[in-house]
Amino acid sequence: MGQERSQASAILTRLVQMEVRPGRPRDNTAFMLDAIRRAQADNVELVVFPEMAIPGYLLGDEWEYAGYLRECEACGREILAASQSLIVVFGNVAIDWARRNEDGRPRKYNALFVAEDGQFKGPAGSPYPFVIKTLMPNYREFDDSRHFHDLRKLALEENRPLSDLLTPVHTRRLKLGCFLCEDAWDADYAYSPLEILSRHPVDCFINISASPFTFNKNHKRNRVFSAQAVRLKRPLLYVNQVGLQNNGKTVFTFDGRSCIYDSHGRFLDAGEPFAVTEQTVRIPLETGAAFGTGNDLRQDSVADLYQAIEYGTRMFMRQCGVRRVVIGVSGGIDSAVVAALYRRILDPKDLLLVNMPGTFTSGTTRNLSRQLVAALGCPYAEIPIPDSVTLTRSQVDGLKVASLDGHIQETLKLSGLGVENVQARDRSSRILAAVASAFGGVFTCNANKSEVTVGYTTLYGDLGGYLANIADLWKTEVYALAAYLNDTVYQSTVIPQGIFDVTPSAELSPAQNVDEGKGDPIRYHYHDCLFASWVERWNRACPEDILDWYHKGTLEQELKWNGRIADPFPTPADFIADLERWWNQFQGMGVAKRIQAPPVLAVKRRAFGFDFRESQMGPRYTAAYERLKQTLLTGG
Amino acid sequence: MGQERSQASAILTRLVQMEVRPGRPRDNTAFMLDAIRRAQADNVELVVFPEMAIPGYLLGDEWEYAGYLRECEACGREILAASQSLIVVFGNVAIDWARRNEDGRPRKYNALFVAEDGQFKGPAGSPYPFVIKTLMPNYREFDDSRHFHDLRKLALEENRPLSDLLTPVHTRRLKLGCFLCEDAWDADYAYSPLEILSRHPVDCFINISASPFTFNKNHKRNRVFSAQAVRLKRPLLYVNQVGLQNNGKTVFTFDGRSCIYDSHGRFLDAGEPFAVTEQTVRIPLETGAAFGTGNDLRQDSVADLYQAIEYGTRMFMRQCGVRRVVIGVSGGIDSAVVAALYRRILDPKDLLLVNMPGTFTSGTTRNLSRQLVAALGCPYAEIPIPDSVTLTRSQVDGLKVASLDGHIQETLKLSGLGVENVQARDRSSRILAAVASAFGGVFTCNANKSEVTVGYTTLYGDLGGYLANIADLWKTEVYALAAYLNDTVYQSTVIPQGIFDVTPSAELSPAQNVDEGKGDPIRYHYHDCLFASWVERWNRACPEDILDWYHKGTLEQELKWNGRIADPFPTPADFIADLERWWNQFQGMGVAKRIQAPPVLAVKRRAFGFDFRESQMGPRYTAAYERLKQTLLTGG
Repeated sequence: MGQERSQASAILTRLVQMEVRPGRPRDNTAFMLDAIRRAQADNVELVVFPEMAIPGYLLGDEWEYAGYLRECEACGREILAASQSLIVVFGNVAIDWARRNEDGRPRKYNALFVAEDGQFKGPAGSPYPFVIKTLMPNYREFDDSRHFHDLRKLALEENRPLSDLLTPVHTRRLKLGCFLCEDAWDADYAYSPLEILSRHPVDCFINISASPFTFNKNHKRNRVFSAQAVRLKRPLLYVNQVGLQNNGKTVFTFDGRSCIYDSHGRFLDAGEPFAVTEQTVRIPLETGAAFGTGNDLRQDSVADLYQAIEYGTRMFMRQCGVRRVVIGVSGGIDSAVVAALYRRILDPKDLLLVNMPGTFTSGTTRNLSRQLVAALGCPYAEIPIPDSVTLTRSQVDGLKVASLDGHIQETLKLSGLGVENVQARDRSSRILAAVASAFGGVFTCNANKSEVTVGYTTLYGDLGGYLANIADLWKTEVYALAAYLNDTVYQSTVIPQGIFDVTPSAELSPAQNVDEGKGDPIRYHYHDCLFASWVERWNRACPEDILDWYHKGTLEQELKWNGRIADPFPTPADFIADLERWWNQFQGMGVAKRIQAPPVLAVKRRAFGFDFRESQMGPRYTAAYERLKQTLLTGG
Repeated sequence: MGQERSQASAILTRLVQMEVRPGRPRDNTAFMLDAIRRAQADNVELVVFPEMAIPGYLLGDEWEYAGYLRECEACGREILAASQSLIVVFGNVAIDWARRNEDGRPRKYNALFVAEDGQFKGPAGSPYPFVIKTLMPNYREFDDSRHFHDLRKLALEENRPLSDLLTPVHTRRLKLGCFLCEDAWDADYAYSPLEILSRHPVDCFINISASPFTFNKNHKRNRVFSAQAVRLKRPLLYVNQVGLQNNGKTVFTFDGRSCIYDSHGRFLDAGEPFAVTEQTVRIPLETGAAFGTGNDLRQDSVADLYQAIEYGTRMFMRQCGVRRVVIGVSGGIDSAVVAALYRRILDPKDLLLVNMPGTFTSGTTRNLSRQLVAALGCPYAEIPIPDSVTLTRSQVDGLKVASLDGHIQETLKLSGLGVENVQARDRSSRILAAVASAFGGVFTCNANKSEVTVGYTTLYGDLGGYLANIADLWKTEVYALAAYLNDTVYQSTVIPQGIFDVTPSAELSPAQNVDEGKGDPIRYHYHDCLFASWVERWNRACPEDILDWYHKGTLEQELKWNGRIADPFPTPADFIADLERWWNQFQGMGVAKRIQAPPVLAVKRRAFGFDFRESQMGPRYTAAYERLKQTLLTGG
């Protein structure tokens, strides 16, 4: 290493945790230009914006419109022109119109730009005046390799070692170790961009990110980034977006939580969660400088889930231009939680709660609905469904259908389950959709993740709605959120205790009579843990694994379930029947229903839709499962 | 090149164009073992199966279940054990349990295995006894980098040139140049696997594929592969799957069309489209051997679309266990085509056609429905909706809603558009869903791509259904398919001429009276071409491009529209108003509706869903568009 670090002893830095509006480069650029002017007025030396600050990040295939790319390029030039008397670091898409991506479309990079006094400064060895993202996330909701050429591919194409292209950016005063989001999360890659950068003198490392909120991700990020800063012996900046972006089926919040790490592994929070902030810090550059104030590795809690859901719901409404909302309230916990959430966002006059009693609706749940409505102070309507259900039955059940020549004749027969679904569809597709239209708003989907996993919902019925904002929460998490709403958010019992106590039930048949303690077939405490192992574990469990754990006696521990499996299921036959019942639903009708489900607001790893991708293939079991099942059933 | 080609003069080869059942490795393996036994009995020397023959290819995130991977591995070992006295080439997932993918999960390769006498034969320089896919498609429906580590990444990780790892496979008798699917489509990549392989002596090149049907893809494939064979001066085998696989939102057929190319650019068809075939060919290996019988570069036609849709629908029904189907027939072209398609698949007794007249339904379309029903010979029912629509209006329109304390009061009012949607939802979610349940089947979605593009459909109404099998066809293509059904498939007018002639209309209001020639606001001949430029062009056009073409007078030519734009839109203001109307719908409610739409059967480039990925961001225009619009509107 021939070169020394710069002699600067500190740098007045501003971290701009901005809301990036996806698909709105001009809005984002206008905000950035204002922020740059403010920074100039305050004599800030370095201003840092997030990854993809201009275009947004989760845009679907919007990247295929050349007009969009030209607009983002033009916006980048505006930022460049404004970069007088300070250094501006920001993320944008970079286009090389002369080269092709591997899909034949114009070459695109996910890039970090450093602008200083009207000039872009790139890494010394790079053919481009910008920093290119090296590591491409292609898991969960991320599709980076679909759209962007990464630095590894470029190095191969140029026939040069990656380390030639990945060097610090030298500005007049500073040597900056610049990298993007995933580049810091190198544990599972063959390359460490940070290790390569750190072969050179660097004053300060800068990670710009577009990292959606996921339960407990910040905990992990603080561990990873603190350790990196300690190893690098330099300050490390992390600047993340706030806002809301979506991939159609799945909606993600960005929580910001920008942060500066010192080489002692301590950090300085530089952005409140889910808030637009501009934090200004004089970052000391002497080796070993200590400026961090904490190293709190707090785990997320229900408070974080609440915050993400409240923010995500509010931002999604703004995104879609929704100002008024209709919620079907049943007297159960899910619709109560959804109603209490919306009541934090909307004036009571803009939130209409509707109870739709049917033949099997109990006085118990009707009263609970009214108690909820009274506590929330919203307008309310009771719209009964029996007349319509009777009409539908009279039109369909017993209907004679025949070919015109009379050769084929058949009489239709509605089953009990068929009539249950008629009721559910009547509520949503007939009443709620019409009421939402007449109220000038939308209606919500109140489904939880437990139901959605096993398709315990009716398509065009309770699975309808413009957004499913609690569909990434297991039923047990919905109860926890309900308690948090009462205890902390409202500090008042807006959700009546009776709603916590009543048996969860669809009330669509006499077999679901809550007054007799009858209701859903799902044992939520156990099944939530079981379903989570199929969906949310990083290395997902299939029935073969479940049966193996059961056989070895480690099931409770593997599922983190606080119970004893022999209590609900005394015999292997009972256990296996239950397992197969729900697995068949999960891989069968569950998938079919999720394909037509509303967008899910993601708050955890593996939300249904674009995070957890599925194919409709019907229920499947491995040969190893079948063998183990035989062993267990024959007591072998 | 120290080595010579083998001395074999010909090789008795069998191309097994098998149906790969996704997620069913044991079924696929059982078929393969049978095929191997047949090949052994026939003294075949080389038997070739498609890419991913054991696991299937489009599986969503099924690859995350270790149990699934273990099962596929075990199946591969069964094939290996069976490979006595011949060479077996097949595709499977290969797992290196000791290494990690970049997502932290077990390392997976999309691999080609060569088994001979119970031994796997790999490329000389590779650390693995199998061939690894080098080029990863990450466009359209493909997500290869999400699941599979490619050979380029492995070469980097091993710090060796790609050419070390990518060499022919030497069996006892033959030197095989083996590669997988995308590896042959190298035009937009920095590497050509075929060029690297061809540096060595090779007797024969083998490409195994899992390539879904796309209109006109075979035409391009024959051009590309013929040219490769000419350049390589060797025979080139192409073995593709048949069957049906899906990515949830989008359903793909695999058409097979396996083929052998000789070094003169001529080829031998070795697999009928959409059929399970085993073609046995003695392939001559002398340099310059000519065995191809044709070089027909036929473009696809409506016949190919029909075949793909009929096959895809039939296979999707089997996949989902659907045996009976209900179709709402309106007297319009879309439902008529869907009904005529299903009638090719089902006994008339299993296909129920339902007409649901409303207040605005004409005698014209009711009669046309009956004519269609008579021609198809299916059972039929007329189920009117006015009673239910009246009930819904009476329950919602004018309903007084109020908070329980009376502070908030409001009277609901259903708009005209609201009442239109009530009718559409009543038909699908109330009647068809109940009828399908009572008939023991499903109901169909008859939407076409023109409507789906601009959201000219009702959610939970005509956009409901278990499968949208013509939703990848523009309205003009639906008419062409209707004519093909009459002229060629049925050779009889099953779709009455009146259905071709009647004005396309939803018949939901007096403004849509077909007897007065009133109907849909879409001018299909022009708008289909316009919408296709937004959706189906590889480099998609946005309003900025459209306006630029309009301004330059090249619009008709760019859109391939056989008309004059000044006819429907005499002034720039007219043209722009129309453009923005539909673009707003496309990027606005259109997206919201597609998110909850049924699976679309893909037959062309860019089917909605997983091929064409979208984010809900609201309508957007670039600054360049706004400037050009001003110029045009002010006559500047």
